[in-house]
Amino acid sequence: MINVLFAATEARWSEYEAPLTAAFADRDLAVDLRTDFAPDAFAPEEVDYIIYAPNSDVQDFTPYTRCKAVLNLWAGVEAIVGNQTLTQPLCRMVDHGLTRGMVEWVTGHALRHHLHIDHFLAHQDGDWEGAKLIPPLAEERPVTVLGLGELGTACAQSLAQMGFPVTGWSRTQKDIEGLTCLSGTDGLAKALSNAQILVLLLPLTEETTDLLDATRLGQLPEGAVILNPGRGPLIVDDALLAALDSGHLRHATLDVFREEPLPAAHPFWSHPKVTVCPHIASETRPLTASRIIADNVARGEAGQDFLFEVDRSQGY
Amino acid sequence: MINVLFAATEARWSEYEAPLTAAFADRDLAVDLRTDFAPDAFAPEEVDYIIYAPNSDVQDFTPYTRCKAVLNLWAGVEAIVGNQTLTQPLCRMVDHGLTRGMVEWVTGHALRHHLHIDHFLAHQDGDWEGAKLIPPLAEERPVTVLGLGELGTACAQSLAQMGFPVTGWSRTQKDIEGLTCLSGTDGLAKALSNAQILVLLLPLTEETTDLLDATRLGQLPEGAVILNPGRGPLIVDDALLAALDSGHLRHATLDVFREEPLPAAHPFWSHPKVTVCPHIASETRPLTASRIIADNVARGEAGQDFLFEVDRSQGY
Repeated sequence: MINVLFAATEARWSEYEAPLTAAFADRDLAVDLRTDFAPDAFAPEEVDYIIYAPNSDVQDFTPYTRCKAVLNLWAGVEAIVGNQTLTQPLCRMVDHGLTRGMVEWVTGHALRHHLHIDHFLAHQDGDWEGAKLIPPLAEERPVTVLGLGELGTACAQSLAQMGFPVTGWSRTQKDIEGLTCLSGTDGLAKALSNAQILVLLLPLTEETTDLLDATRLGQLPEGAVILNPGRGPLIVDDALLAALDSGHLRHATLDVFREEPLPAAHPFWSHPKVTVCPHIASETRPLTASRIIADNVARGEAGQDFLFEVDRSQGY
Repeated sequence: MINVLFAATEARWSEYEAPLTAAFADRDLAVDLRTDFAPDAFAPEEVDYIIYAPNSDVQDFTPYTRCKAVLNLWAGVEAIVGNQTLTQPLCRMVDHGLTRGMVEWVTGHALRHHLHIDHFLAHQDGDWEGAKLIPPLAEERPVTVLGLGELGTACAQSLAQMGFPVTGWSRTQKDIEGLTCLSGTDGLAKALSNAQILVLLLPLTEETTDLLDATRLGQLPEGAVILNPGRGPLIVDDALLAALDSGHLRHATLDVFREEPLPAAHPFWSHPKVTVCPHIASETRPLTASRIIADNVARGEAGQDFLFEVDRSQGY
């Protein structure tokens, strides 16, 4: 019997119990699946795998001496990767549903700004000529994606398929078909200078915190639009507001924030050039995510490498 | 010397003179290009080709005895195809820029409604939980495109690439990779019954006028959205308003109308479930369209079949 601990909230358990049970059964894995808040909870030293969400009660991994892997329910691991008690392998979630949801959100909001859909929504006043606005073709509107992980690459490829000329930037140089790939500090300045639409999908690390400060926002072309479905602290909020107020940037559509829920008094909510989305750009879907978790348990039992294992020296 | 008559408005001439001249020169065609409003206009019997827009002064084609083809500047030909004096070959415009513009508009507005972007724009009031709404994945949202000509096929394929399950319907049965193709009356009922988003890209003919009446709108599923970048008379306006008011349909985003400009008093302008766009979904782009026209003149001179020749018995 394989003992799997589900360490997340009760709300999550109600979503995941059925699909996880089915996914383990599909792979013929004899799993005993229990939550950490169950009356018959495992003793830590009995646990083989931990399915983990950062708001779980489990904060000290030291007693989990037999645990072969910690399987994060989400793509982002910044809330756990620095935990000094965690010596077990840590795996991120890379879920088909999460990736597709992100691709749809990024492509949809990029097209919204490309086509000036907000302009048409604001011109429903009977003035036909006043409403007219012909956008350029996507092929004339360069887009840059910062971050070329699973999500960034999928989004960049979708934007390229729509016809946008896409530049992708990452810490280490990549080579991805259909994209202009840049890296490093010089590459970043170049990637920003050409971005009429900028998409932020970087992991949150010490190096990426506050990356989009006044200087880097100033490197964007006049009238640029920012989409941030990545992590709130990638942007310096005050610098963003200043760049919008000065007219340098056209709009920012933000799905993530330094503090979530975004406080009702935060100026982003009422700013005419900011769209606030309440962290919905991409949700892990229990059905597809449960299959990934079951795959990783099966790989662990077969002595194979885990899928999506985090390199903790890099923080993602 | 090849005599080419530009029969459209002065506004169009100012856009087209330079790119047409360049496109003919690129193909080494010795063209004398003149407008019908020039002081030195051709006599009709001297004209070899007519570049045509329906608001031109040319309405009687009988005197153009030497004319080898009438090259329409736009994709739609309903304003000329029924002209009994027209015996010359008629070619539609199929312009790369026009097709890409339409694909971007259709994909952008489909994603706008799929992602409920209007909902988020309306919830910028500081209420994080109240703004939450997780859409399904595109793969769970069936879309139907009526019309599988150049534009309909390109849009259907783009939507399929975004992950939507796409049904395409056309008068004659087609077989297009990645789409479920239906045809005929039975096929239409089925195509409508499954369309959470319906895209209208049919040509305007006797058979398609008033196609979307109360009965056919009633065949759409509860909460469906309509995008009409095709032709205004495909929809019965009052039936559409009734279906929106009853709550059967969620929204209609319309780019074309029975009367254009849409009169300021028309109820579409002020209806909360209608978005009016002033016929901008797809514009012929002079640069790319001029190349198509020059190609067709070159083909005519070489005795080859014309590109995009209209079958007048079918009306498109």
